[in-house]
Amino acid sequence: MAQRIGKTVVLDSKPRIIGNAAVVGKKEGEGPLGSEFDEIYEDTTMGEDSWEKAESLYLKTAVAKALEKAAVGASEVDAICSGDLLNQCTGSTFGLRDFLSPFCGVYGACSTMALSLCVSSLMIESGGFNCCVAATSSHFCSAEKQFRKPLEYGGQRPPSAQWTVTGSGAAVLKKCTSDISPYIDKLHMGTIQDYGITDSNNMGAAMAPAAKKTIADFLTDTAAKPSDFDLILTGDLGSVGSELLYELLLRENGIDISTVHKDCGLMIYDREKQDVHSGGSGCGCSGSVLCSHIINSMRVGKYKNILFIATGALMSPVSSLQGQTIPGIAHLVNIKKGV
Amino acid sequence: MAQRIGKTVVLDSKPRIIGNAAVVGKKEGEGPLGSEFDEIYEDTTMGEDSWEKAESLYLKTAVAKALEKAAVGASEVDAICSGDLLNQCTGSTFGLRDFLSPFCGVYGACSTMALSLCVSSLMIESGGFNCCVAATSSHFCSAEKQFRKPLEYGGQRPPSAQWTVTGSGAAVLKKCTSDISPYIDKLHMGTIQDYGITDSNNMGAAMAPAAKKTIADFLTDTAAKPSDFDLILTGDLGSVGSELLYELLLRENGIDISTVHKDCGLMIYDREKQDVHSGGSGCGCSGSVLCSHIINSMRVGKYKNILFIATGALMSPVSSLQGQTIPGIAHLVNIKKGV
Repeated sequence: MAQRIGKTVVLDSKPRIIGNAAVVGKKEGEGPLGSEFDEIYEDTTMGEDSWEKAESLYLKTAVAKALEKAAVGASEVDAICSGDLLNQCTGSTFGLRDFLSPFCGVYGACSTMALSLCVSSLMIESGGFNCCVAATSSHFCSAEKQFRKPLEYGGQRPPSAQWTVTGSGAAVLKKCTSDISPYIDKLHMGTIQDYGITDSNNMGAAMAPAAKKTIADFLTDTAAKPSDFDLILTGDLGSVGSELLYELLLRENGIDISTVHKDCGLMIYDREKQDVHSGGSGCGCSGSVLCSHIINSMRVGKYKNILFIATGALMSPVSSLQGQTIPGIAHLVNIKKGV
Repeated sequence: MAQRIGKTVVLDSKPRIIGNAAVVGKKEGEGPLGSEFDEIYEDTTMGEDSWEKAESLYLKTAVAKALEKAAVGASEVDAICSGDLLNQCTGSTFGLRDFLSPFCGVYGACSTMALSLCVSSLMIESGGFNCCVAATSSHFCSAEKQFRKPLEYGGQRPPSAQWTVTGSGAAVLKKCTSDISPYIDKLHMGTIQDYGITDSNNMGAAMAPAAKKTIADFLTDTAAKPSDFDLILTGDLGSVGSELLYELLLRENGIDISTVHKDCGLMIYDREKQDVHSGGSGCGCSGSVLCSHIINSMRVGKYKNILFIATGALMSPVSSLQGQTIPGIAHLVNIKKGV
């Protein structure tokens, strides 16, 4: 049974990530992590006649590959937790329809990979679920169309803007003592933080306060310090958001994470060569980086104790047009490697 | 610790619904359940300058009232699980921002009240959460604008169409043995069912197969029959979907639920007088009916053992325009009254 310390939940079941997979598009495949992905699709439509259908196919492929690598059949899956950025989360619906597993739709914007891991872990911790899949996806073209401007418009992007990752990540979680895969040790669900940011081309700034709050609260709850971890990994703060996170944590909490921090949005592209401005973003950014490079590195023992904090900007184009601010949220999972 | 039987989860913690509230708009207040709601707002904008902002305010009010009735402060809430029909679930984001409780965004279209109850219950069952709030909302005007046509267009509605409820329901769940409030005994998360329906003016037909699957699977798992329950309550199948559900269950499973079945969409309006065609719909439909009339009736012992099955149509306007079908999903909670 889990224990609660402050807002942090210490799991007893220690769900293991027995399978993980990430599939991405051409641009992501050309980045520094290219060799780590399970599949790279040069044609980002994947042969589909819409970007939305393509996004669903990325998700479907990632989940299928993760299950294959875990040697788990779809009929053994007790629930799939997934969500995405598309209106009414249709990326997940149509991507997961064929698995016939119980489906738990979650929504956390770009924090979704951490949220789906939290909910999956709690399901397993409850005792009512043995095996769950946590997944998410995003697609540059469906996101631009929905949130910003039609691609054909060719709009200029300010330096603070980020590039939505085309890709999907999936992790298969199971309670099993005979396995030595990385496991979820603790989790911390975030609270909505609103610092009044209104610029949807500066998502990093909108999300950094949420990351700051979740990290600071977690460290306080567990009496831990940044150097206790091999890696503190944020989802998609990009360069602007990461700098802001360092500043906020240092100024308000006296915490310096800069030496152990990385951001998936800064890892997935080569910013010198790939013209992505402040870095990668989207649910698929942290999803694909975590479910490839990071978990693979943990499997071989490169990292033994990491914090994964994915952040989300809880806005819609309509809320922004109506003058609303952009509230942020950050969910955290503490993943460990060891017996 | 929970036990799993088939896809059904039998909870050990028996989370109690220690507070519940529903707030609705003018039309809902004029319906047969008018006297049961906590608040009825004659001005469905609630003084806000957009329908979306109004929807958030309905949700905020319902959650605040439920907490007040439960005598629980917002700081005692370990998580709020909520979602809605608006793009990127902004009804929930902006409605819940001020509570500063950990926020778990869920998306199940009109099944969201059952989904948020399932996730909240599993959180409590895990041991890591003591008190959670399950909530949802919908608004006729924001839903019509987003999913169908601008209200000013004055389009004709076919007889199979349903009327999105303006309202919100919230339930406060807590593990406590000293209370005699109704409790969540079992839950069953649904699988996506797609019978190839494409008419977004016939959501009942799209969702009925999912309700059929979940109800039949639950009864099989638990070796129960419809007459074991005081009430089998669906969310918003309306008259078309309810008839279809009876037919599917009888033909494919030999199960007759017609004598113990009610549908929130058929209860909330007087269809003779209120011109809602096939009945009410929207997350707020089952949310407001469950969190007023139904739970209140359980408190006084009118019902002692009910199944609540909320169904969702997992589509978006974009998916329909792209020729996709409308997959349905149905999540179930078995609520009981007793010590």
